[in-house]
Amino acid sequence: MSQLSDTLSNNHDKNIEELKELLRIPSISSSSEHKEDIQKAASWIAGKLKNIGMEHVEIIETKGHPIIYADWIHQENAPTVLVYGHYDVQPVDPIELWKTPPFEPDVRDEKIFARGATDDKGQMFLHIKAVETLMESEGKLPVNIKFCIEGEEEIGSPNLPAFLNENKEKLSCDVVLISDTDMWDKGVPAITCSLRGLCALEFTLKTANSDLHSGMFGGGVQNANHLLVQLLSTLHDSNGKVNVDHFYDDVQELTDLEKQQIEELGFDEEKLKQSLGLTDLTGGEQNYPYRERTSSRPTLEINGMWGGFQGEGTKTVIPNEAHAKITCRLVNNQNPKKIQESLKKHLEEHAPKGCTVKVTLQDTGYPFLTPIDSPMIQKAAEAYQNVYGNPPVYKREGGSIPIVTDFNQSLNAPVVLMGFGLPGENLHAPNEHFHLENFDMGILTICTFLELIHQ
Amino acid sequence: MSQLSDTLSNNHDKNIEELKELLRIPSISSSSEHKEDIQKAASWIAGKLKNIGMEHVEIIETKGHPIIYADWIHQENAPTVLVYGHYDVQPVDPIELWKTPPFEPDVRDEKIFARGATDDKGQMFLHIKAVETLMESEGKLPVNIKFCIEGEEEIGSPNLPAFLNENKEKLSCDVVLISDTDMWDKGVPAITCSLRGLCALEFTLKTANSDLHSGMFGGGVQNANHLLVQLLSTLHDSNGKVNVDHFYDDVQELTDLEKQQIEELGFDEEKLKQSLGLTDLTGGEQNYPYRERTSSRPTLEINGMWGGFQGEGTKTVIPNEAHAKITCRLVNNQNPKKIQESLKKHLEEHAPKGCTVKVTLQDTGYPFLTPIDSPMIQKAAEAYQNVYGNPPVYKREGGSIPIVTDFNQSLNAPVVLMGFGLPGENLHAPNEHFHLENFDMGILTICTFLELIHQ
Repeated sequence: MSQLSDTLSNNHDKNIEELKELLRIPSISSSSEHKEDIQKAASWIAGKLKNIGMEHVEIIETKGHPIIYADWIHQENAPTVLVYGHYDVQPVDPIELWKTPPFEPDVRDEKIFARGATDDKGQMFLHIKAVETLMESEGKLPVNIKFCIEGEEEIGSPNLPAFLNENKEKLSCDVVLISDTDMWDKGVPAITCSLRGLCALEFTLKTANSDLHSGMFGGGVQNANHLLVQLLSTLHDSNGKVNVDHFYDDVQELTDLEKQQIEELGFDEEKLKQSLGLTDLTGGEQNYPYRERTSSRPTLEINGMWGGFQGEGTKTVIPNEAHAKITCRLVNNQNPKKIQESLKKHLEEHAPKGCTVKVTLQDTGYPFLTPIDSPMIQKAAEAYQNVYGNPPVYKREGGSIPIVTDFNQSLNAPVVLMGFGLPGENLHAPNEHFHLENFDMGILTICTFLELIHQ
Repeated sequence: MSQLSDTLSNNHDKNIEELKELLRIPSISSSSEHKEDIQKAASWIAGKLKNIGMEHVEIIETKGHPIIYADWIHQENAPTVLVYGHYDVQPVDPIELWKTPPFEPDVRDEKIFARGATDDKGQMFLHIKAVETLMESEGKLPVNIKFCIEGEEEIGSPNLPAFLNENKEKLSCDVVLISDTDMWDKGVPAITCSLRGLCALEFTLKTANSDLHSGMFGGGVQNANHLLVQLLSTLHDSNGKVNVDHFYDDVQELTDLEKQQIEELGFDEEKLKQSLGLTDLTGGEQNYPYRERTSSRPTLEINGMWGGFQGEGTKTVIPNEAHAKITCRLVNNQNPKKIQESLKKHLEEHAPKGCTVKVTLQDTGYPFLTPIDSPMIQKAAEAYQNVYGNPPVYKREGGSIPIVTDFNQSLNAPVVLMGFGLPGENLHAPNEHFHLENFDMGILTICTFLELIHQ
């Protein structure tokens, strides 16, 4: 490892200069103005992958932005690692809040500032450099490597799932390695071991064939708003538990050890309340602690609802239509499509007398859960420990990254979320940056992981 | 009466031509473009009142459109009648649906078509013609008469209540006579003996200091939509009764006779359901019949509510604000300001933990109730019976006409709502019209009423 470390030190400035080249390309995926920049970024990465000795480098067109594929498969008895990352970035507004221009990378205070510095060009680049470093030191890699780098992550990866399903053989691997998440804190690495899934639907409740006047009809006919309130009030019990049949069927309770691990991470409730401007943290299931509720328990949230008059003043209308949009965060073995159907059934069955309820199913995304004691996770932990001198924290994230489950399910391989970002690096915001401490240490951790799993 | 009848027959064509003159003036009160037309209509009426022998004719400026006053007070021992009406009209959109232009009066099928034909130029004009007819036949009037004709009824009479309060002496009278309502059916007159009052408020419910991400915070913090549903669901019990303390304190049950009268008017429930596109008429208090609920019982309606995301697709947001607008229809002795306060208190006291509720009080209007057996109502009934050969139906309207109560309260005089419109005459809609059968018969009924109360 010390030899790798020396190589990295020697190449540090050159490596940073190369990263700056990539960061200068404004590859904003959501804007059609930047279509050429997207192509430029894809070519840059493909070129770099060739330079470091990767083979079969391809820029694969999709209906949207291209995916870059490359591999190096010369270790018959070693496992195969698929590295995923993305070269597209978020828009830069509000531009006036950037201290230095978002596409003119600037190093200050040991950090490199630019759009994409941490999300995800910077982190993805660590893998390229890890391969290069190993190639330079050893002339070969300890394991087989495949790269799959996309350009649509920031717009929801619309073409990735189909690509995975259509290329299962080409992408087959023993582990998917992704660096697109955060460490716990400076010097304290983290492995995200769980992500919540998602299902969404919306519905419209209808009563009469038009809005009615509350003078003529008030007290006589059903008001769509009243019925919506009745229907929505059936969704949770008084304790905050979701009141939909079969909702919790596939939810496993955390083990005592897991609960203890969450507990040990600590949590400043007062500080959080203050920052959110809340007097209570009383959402969700009241018989679970806050941290568990927001990471390891499923939820049902009414994200939007509306009916009737919203203008200034008064309108004595009895609305004939009301609407709601609902999403659930899901955990463990919950199947988003089954939950969606259970919720649809609940809404239809609990529709009050005198109305119709029309449900439209929307997005779904599976939850992700990697057992902490799985071999790949343990090797990743060992690599972190070796390089950072600290074991990783196992993070259970409340949010959803649907592509993680797509990889997991399409390729039937464990996914290791080995993040090198730090909390507060302003991803999706002005002055995005990446701490350079995690540049060489990140590359070294990846090299170490690849060497560890070779054994 | 037959002499009056002859006079009316002889003058019929001339009278219609005069009404057409008034209908040609596009006195739309809501549009500043028509300010001159408003003045023109006011002048036309003032001139007409002078012509027929009314005295002290004044066009009184207000902050908005002028009020016309006139009187004839020469019967020391007879009662004084104050006639109220309005010369302003509704806008004419959608103009393309008018068969003949709205301000080019057209007579066809015994009806006169024009904006304002029934609401209220046509009906108001009957009173001018009644006075003229009596003057012509008798050289004097059987009672004292005052006219108070305003130009802002279609925009909510913003300046009338203050005018009434500041001119109590000038307007003092024994009865207020208004023709701005409907008959029951062709040939079947009606007196509206009850109108519901109104109170309105809106409120905002707030939780955190910004919308929050349902991945990071879902299951941990309160969702403003959930709390709004909780709060709104406290407003009615499962039987549709309003669940607010003191709401029904001043509501009197109808007498058995009154209930029977409502029953006898008949009601085709199936026809109504069909026309509204409803399978049930299950709004309001389930232990009262439909007709009673919509006319003689108070209500609480959520006219509007909203919170969170209403756009296309999905947004995994936990909204920090939600809103509702509520109006109540009130009856009998209910005091709208007291009800407003009770409702405000209810909302504040039932605000769920973890949110603030800020209530804004809006409009109020008192309910109106005239005892059917009061002498003025009985005389009006007699006049109808004499002219139409049918006794009037006593209508309890579910809607509100706040100025009726303003007259009642400011002048401490009974109000007689003696309507000559027919249901379906398209007031506020294209092809508004007034049936000419009720033109001469209306004038004759008014003459008869004035003669009857002289005795």
